[in-house]
Parts: sequence; C-alpha cells; structure tokens
Amino acid sequence: MAQSTLTKAIRTSESMEPALSFSTQEQAAQRKLEALRTKNGKRPNIVWLLIDDMGYGDPGAFGGGAAIGAATPNMDRLAREGLKLTSTYSQATCTPTRSAILTGRLPVRTGLTRPILAGDKITKNPWSDEVSLPKLLGDAGYKTVLSGKWHVGEAEGMRPHDVGFDEFYGYYGAQKEITQHVYKARYPDLVLNPERLEMLRKTGSSVALIHGFKGGKTTEVQTVDTPEKMAEGDRLLKEFSVAKIKELARGREPFFLEHAFMKVHADNFASKAFEGKSASKYPYKDAVVEVDAYIGEIVKALEDAGVLENTFIFITSDNGPQLDSWPDGGYTPFRGAKGSAWEGGVRVPGIAYWKDTITPGRESDELFDLMDLFNTSLNLAGIPGKIPTDRYIDGIDQTSFLIEDGGRSRREKIYIWNEHNLMSMRMYEYKIHIKVVQHHAQWLNIDMTTVSDVGLAPWLFNLYIDPKEQYPVGHRMNAWLASMAAELKAHAATFKKYPPKDIGLAQ
Amino acid sequence: MAQSTLTKAIRTSESMEPALSFSTQEQAAQRKLEALRTKNGKRPNIVWLLIDDMGYGDPGAFGGGAAIGAATPNMDRLAREGLKLTSTYSQATCTPTRSAILTGRLPVRTGLTRPILAGDKITKNPWSDEVSLPKLLGDAGYKTVLSGKWHVGEAEGMRPHDVGFDEFYGYYGAQKEITQHVYKARYPDLVLNPERLEMLRKTGSSVALIHGFKGGKTTEVQTVDTPEKMAEGDRLLKEFSVAKIKELARGREPFFLEHAFMKVHADNFASKAFEGKSASKYPYKDAVVEVDAYIGEIVKALEDAGVLENTFIFITSDNGPQLDSWPDGGYTPFRGAKGSAWEGGVRVPGIAYWKDTITPGRESDELFDLMDLFNTSLNLAGIPGKIPTDRYIDGIDQTSFLIEDGGRSRREKIYIWNEHNLMSMRMYEYKIHIKVVQHHAQWLNIDMTTVSDVGLAPWLFNLYIDPKEQYPVGHRMNAWLASMAAELKAHAATFKKYPPKDIGLAQ
Repeated sequence: MAQSTLTKAIRTSESMEPALSFSTQEQAAQRKLEALRTKNGKRPNIVWLLIDDMGYGDPGAFGGGAAIGAATPNMDRLAREGLKLTSTYSQATCTPTRSAILTGRLPVRTGLTRPILAGDKITKNPWSDEVSLPKLLGDAGYKTVLSGKWHVGEAEGMRPHDVGFDEFYGYYGAQKEITQHVYKARYPDLVLNPERLEMLRKTGSSVALIHGFKGGKTTEVQTVDTPEKMAEGDRLLKEFSVAKIKELARGREPFFLEHAFMKVHADNFASKAFEGKSASKYPYKDAVVEVDAYIGEIVKALEDAGVLENTFIFITSDNGPQLDSWPDGGYTPFRGAKGSAWEGGVRVPGIAYWKDTITPGRESDELFDLMDLFNTSLNLAGIPGKIPTDRYIDGIDQTSFLIEDGGRSRREKIYIWNEHNLMSMRMYEYKIHIKVVQHHAQWLNIDMTTVSDVGLAPWLFNLYIDPKEQYPVGHRMNAWLASMAAELKAHAATFKKYPPKDIGLAQ
Repeated sequence: MAQSTLTKAIRTSESMEPALSFSTQEQAAQRKLEALRTKNGKRPNIVWLLIDDMGYGDPGAFGGGAAIGAATPNMDRLAREGLKLTSTYSQATCTPTRSAILTGRLPVRTGLTRPILAGDKITKNPWSDEVSLPKLLGDAGYKTVLSGKWHVGEAEGMRPHDVGFDEFYGYYGAQKEITQHVYKARYPDLVLNPERLEMLRKTGSSVALIHGFKGGKTTEVQTVDTPEKMAEGDRLLKEFSVAKIKELARGREPFFLEHAFMKVHADNFASKAFEGKSASKYPYKDAVVEVDAYIGEIVKALEDAGVLENTFIFITSDNGPQLDSWPDGGYTPFRGAKGSAWEGGVRVPGIAYWKDTITPGRESDELFDLMDLFNTSLNLAGIPGKIPTDRYIDGIDQTSFLIEDGGRSRREKIYIWNEHNLMSMRMYEYKIHIKVVQHHAQWLNIDMTTVSDVGLAPWLFNLYIDPKEQYPVGHRMNAWLASMAAELKAHAATFKKYPPKDIGLAQ
C-alpha cells in the first residue's frame, strides 16, 4: 500500500515525533482493544522475539529460507498468518537498537550509541535518567522478563534487572564476546596465548549465563568455558522462556517477555541437535534453522498455556547481517550490512502476529521503526499516558496500523543515525543520504566503517525503482530534494531543546 | 528441500540429458495423470504465461511486489496456491529461451543463439530441421496457439504458424524493436531523422500486430505507428487469449496456449487504464501491475470456461531483468542481469499452478530448467515417446517433481551458455563459472557483454551462503572443484556426436 502524500505528519507536542493521523482507524483499534480486554478480563501479553544480526533476506517469507539453504517454516507461517512488514527499520547495530526499543528514543539521545563493554570507562550511567518500557509496564502491573541477550551495559545499575525487568535469564554480551575466550579455531592468537587470555579476563567481561532479579540478586547459572557450551545457549534460553510462559500464563497479571536470541550473531555454532540440520550445513544456516524451530516452540508454549489469543507477538532482527564471518553470515538483498546506513544495515524483517486480532495474510510496505514498539506496547497495556513528556520520544504508537485490517502506518519518516552522525532519512519510497560510509566498509566488516560527507548535495535514492541504492537521482530531482531537506532540518531542530546525552563513551 | 547427493543422475540414452530417477514418485505421478484423464475424458490443457524480461525479484512471492512499488497479487496467489520454484533457470536472453522451451534443446544446438532480425542474413533456416513442441502436440490432437511475442524469426518458414502453431496472434519482435520507429522521446536520432527512419523501415522489420494461421495465411491486424498503440499491445493480446480460451474450452481437443507478454520488455508504456496504477508510478512498475492483472484475467477465463482443473499453468520470465532502461527496469536480488551468466541473468521466477492437482503451498529450491517444459508437456499430453531420439534433448521430464507432493527434481545440473560459450554450471547449491562477462557489463547493458576466461581455475560459488556470487571459493575447495569439472566434461562430450548447428548468423 502506498503512503498517501496528501496527509502530512503532524507534531502534536514538541517532545513527540510527528505522526500521521487516521482517526477512524485509530478509534476502531481502541474499540478492538477494549473488546478484547472485556473478553479476556486481562490486558494483552507482549512477546518480542528478537534475533541477533539476522539479515532481511534470511527468512523464507522475505525471499530467503529454503532458497538459500535454511528453511524457516515457523517464521514463514507467522508472517503468512499475521502482518508481514517489508519496511521495518532498526538501528544500524545491536546496542542502539536494543536500547531504542526499550526507551522509544534514538541512541544519540540516550547515549547508548554503541556497546558498553566491561573495560569501557563512562562518566555517567546512561540508564540513570532513562525510563524503560519494562519499568513502565511493571509499574502498571505487568510481569516483565528478559530472556537472552542484553548488551546494553553489564555494570551494576545498567543490568536488565536494574533498569526495569523483574527477571533476567541470559547473557550480558554478544556470542563472540564470549567465544573470544574459548574458540581457538577462530581466535588462536588470544585463546592459545595465556598472557592475552589473562588480559581479556581482567576486563571482567562476563562469559556466563546469568539469572538476575529486580532488587539486585544475581547468580551465575553456567560459565561458558567451551564453544560447545555457547552452542547450547539458545536451547537453554528457549527452555527458560517456555517454562516461564507456562508460569506467567497462570498468573493474574499480564506479562511482557523479550526473548532475545544469542544466535545468529557470530560466532555461530549450532547446538548439537541442529548441527547439519540446514540444507546448507554451514553453522550460520544451522543457527537460522535452530532459531526458527525455537520460535515455533515458544509460540506453541503460548498456545499450550492458553494465552496465544491474548498475546501480541513481534518478530524481528536487531540490525542487518554482520558480514565479518561472511560468507557464513546473514543475507540481505540490499546494499551494505550491519553498521551502515544503507538498507542492508537497517532494514530488517518485521512480523506482527496476534491470533484472531491481526487478520492473516496482511502485508504492508509502510514504514515501521522498531522504536515504535515502545509506544505501541504502552498503548496495548492501556497506559499511553505514561509516555514521558519531559524528553523527546522518537517512537510512534502503531497499534492501529498493526491490528486494523488495511491499517495505515502513522510514520512518515525514518531517521538513520550512525553513533553521533545523522546519516540518512527514509520518507515514502525515498532515501536521502547526507553522509555515507566509505566504500570498502560497505559490506565486509563493520569495524572499517568510516563516515564521509556525500559532497555537493544529498544522495537521493528511489527504493521502489532502485532497492539496492545503486544510482542516486538527487541531481535529477533537485527541486524535490529541497522538500525532503526541510524534513531533515525539522528533525535536527528537535536537538535544540533536547540535546544529545553525553555519557563520556569514547567513539 | 536439499538435493540428495546420494542419487546421481543417470544417462539412459546418449541423446538424452541424464536425469535423477525417483521411481515411486514417477509412478505415482503417472497414476495421477491417468486418473485425471479418466475423470475429465480429455488430456490436460497446457498454458504458459511467459513474461518478457521480468526480474526474479519482481513478483511479491519472490521478494518484490508491494515492497518495490508494484504489487502482484495474482502471481502471489498462484504461487501460494501452487508450487513456487526458487531455482528456475532460463537462457540469458530472449530468443535462446523462447526457442529452447519449444525444442527442449540448448540454443547452441539449434543455432537460435540470438534474435534473427529482419535484416540478418542466414545460410539456413534453423527451424527447418527442428521438431517443435506445438508440432508434436498438434500431431497428437492438441490445438496450439501462440498469443504474443515470438522473436524467433520473422521470415517465412520461421514464423510461429510455420513451425507448428495452429494460430498466432501477436508481434514478431520485442517492444523496443517496434518503438524504435515511433518513440521520439527515447530515439530522437532515429524518429526525427527521416533518412534514418527510412533505413530502419527498409530492413522490413515488422511493426504490426499479426494474425497468422497454419498453412501460411497471415494478416496485419494493426500497424503500431505510435507509442500509445504499443502501450495497448498487451491488452489486445489478453483480450485475444481470453476469447480464444472460451472458444478452445468448448472444443473436443485439449489445447496448448503460450501467452507471451510483450511487457515488461523496454520500452515500457503502461496501457491507458494502468498509467500510474502502481505505487511507484514508473512505467516499468505500471507494466508489472498490468501484466499481473492480465494473468488474473486469463486464469479467470480458464475458470469461467470450466477448464481450470484440467489445465497445467506455468508462469515465468524469459530471462533476468534488462537494465538498459534502468532504474526504470526489473529487479533481481542477484548479481548481473539479462545477458550474463550470473544468477541475475538466468534465474527467473517459476510458478507451477494446477488446481486440485498441484497441492497449494508447495515450494522447492530444486533445479528446474525452462527447457524441461518441453519434455514435461509431452508427458502431460501422453506422448513422451514422441521426444525425438535423433538429436540431443537437453530437457528432462519433470511431471513428477511438479505434481507430486514432496516431489523431487529429476534435474541435477543446469548448463549456462552465452551464444557459443559455455559459461557456467549450477549443480546442487554450487555454481561454477569457466568464463565470465566483463565487469562493466555485469548489470547495466547487455550490449556491452564481452566474455573473458576466469584465469587459473573455475570460479566456484556456494549459492546458499553467497547468493549474490560475490566471493569465489574454488581455491578453498579445489578438490571438490575437480568433481564438478568432470560434470562439465561430460556435457562437453555430448557435442562430439551432436555438434552445434551453424546457421550462418553473425555473432
């Protein structure tokens, strides 16, 4: 469905992102939510299934699957029986996305622009003045659980159970931060050199499966001292989530479960039961098959517990594919990869599934920013009024887009940042770049990413006729370019009243 | 579904392409066909819907559609309710594919390696010693009709109604060969220069909609003297096919209809009713929407005529996207485009639909070569024994793959040629290149295609982990490379007994 160019996004408050208004659709969605609540006697559960570093093109429903040697029947079924979103945007890397969806705010506003590793010195805990979604949901009576990867700070005061989650069962860092300690085939220079391994250990970086509870109680469930243990990580997380769903479903309160897979982030080792189970047999592909199977099991756990009809499920990836271990890595049909502002870096699969509430077979190319999950979740929980008003909120409530038949997205623009640089903007089918990453960094290795200015004028791409961003047409459409530049200026203006937060993190 | 590496393709005759054997599946398929014939009292109709120059990524079911500004609900539905084939291969350009599917033979064997234009001098009519599918089907009692583009020779003796079709209603050449005479916005140097226009006319190239009948009767229905008339071409073809289906369905004989769209080959102008009807509004996109709508109407005509359950339908494109008019052109997620041996040139969407005979929701990544339509059609018509034995046949009967639940492809390898050069081979998920097209010709313009040797050793790509053919891994897998090279040698050996045909066509 094309976005109407007649309706323009409206700013209703200086601290809120402008949104398109579709009053009939929005009212219908609210009535639908109210009827559901009456029927169920409970507000809906919210479940996010967040896959790590999976490419837009990996699931079958998005062009991959069996065609690239790793069938994804569970994701495909949920896409087919729910709403498939083909223009869903994340941040370009992990920590930025994970923090943004929990705060509804761009990383440049919260300071969480890159992972805070154990050895990093910062001058301020970025979470100290943020209001997280689990905190708001918890205050409103929800049980809140994070199962899986965190990666938004592992020091006290920054852990999931410090910033709002009732319970955390997972890992603080990414798979490769753990496997650097133990995987000699890939890191012989670290693992086979005792002095360097000792240096690595001294940073205090966690290599354990952690169980933490609000209030601070934290235990190590298992130390990951072999690649084989890391391989089983997602199986343990899935077992935890399945058991937790059974327990939570029996409770009187609704729940919010963020299940954040460790896979398919490098380094991938499929768990024993999945080794060689993909047609391709490569570790990344086996990991995709494993994640897909667990998605099936988690959804089945919701069904078995009798709560599937009262649970909003969203499946996505935190950014484009990481191609450091390429070709055993993710697949995107687009230009660029994780870390870049090209579509390959920030366009991710999006699947919204809600049995009996989202009509099966829906599909939309209208814009969805993963930050919209913040506002949408608060609205689903009946507490839209709890959205903070003393800071800028970049998310938009998309409840009506997601649950109404033929629902239109309320989002007109996506702003794409790379740490402290505003890189590009998507609006309608256009993408405008004001900075780009260097050519040699475009796909192979995010660590080579270096930002350059584009020169004379912004690069304009029409993603309908040029999905791979190969041929800028700004010179040809320079009058129209000026209309879009005005939108960029309006975005930049929000930082005057609400300046970026500095946490002293080295860039 | 992964191809088994345990079963190897077997050569049952020196003139037939080796095929995998799945006897249970093949027997079940034959029983199914027999039961259908008993039920319907008639052999099945065969309908091919061949789109011109459409990219693999254009239909929604293959990753495009609404996501790239041109929704394709009809193709998507047929893919969903039929068998979606994600590894379907054409020849790299138009004439080669169109001749290959009607003869079951590689263009290098028939001499039809490129379009024979009106001004071309040849020493031999390539059709004079070929046996076409419509000829064989016609001899066996089928009514045979080509509606649309021909492009396999327009001189007497080479026209569709000379080589086997009972009836032809369409154009001899490609859209752009006609519009070069009339489209001043794109060809001002020809159209606004009377002398050059006269030179063009003197070649005798047809710019008309032709109605021809077996025996030679040929009339010009309409001369295309404006771009607007070309814009309406596909509408006229669709109207013809819809009326013809109604007529044929009433007859006692089964029918074979090849409906070959003129669109979406450059130059695209949507017909009046479709102008601006795609979300993108670009001419190519509007043309995709128009073609998709006509596919819906043609299938509905079959349904309305009561013959849908007795009709095998195959939808595909004749090659990858032509990017000469890019960015207003087709979309492929792969490397390369029309004219190249990269996946972008030869991997096309494939949809097999047969109501009540092909189970809805099937999907397979196993290999299908469009030449297989030759053998498969003859088997569907109950005359597999009519496959010529005095020449090499490159097609394989794929009836059982297409119509049996969980059916496996009988094809192990695809050989990719560029005119007289054997360029590459697909086997399992591997693609091996022994020659490549020059880098600057990879996507923009087929007319710059120049073939080079690859150097030291064949380039090997694993399409599961590297669908875009970016990183050759032959050096890493050189032992395995030798196994694959043996398959190339076996293919080359077929040309000893069956040498390529020389028709005197300048390369």
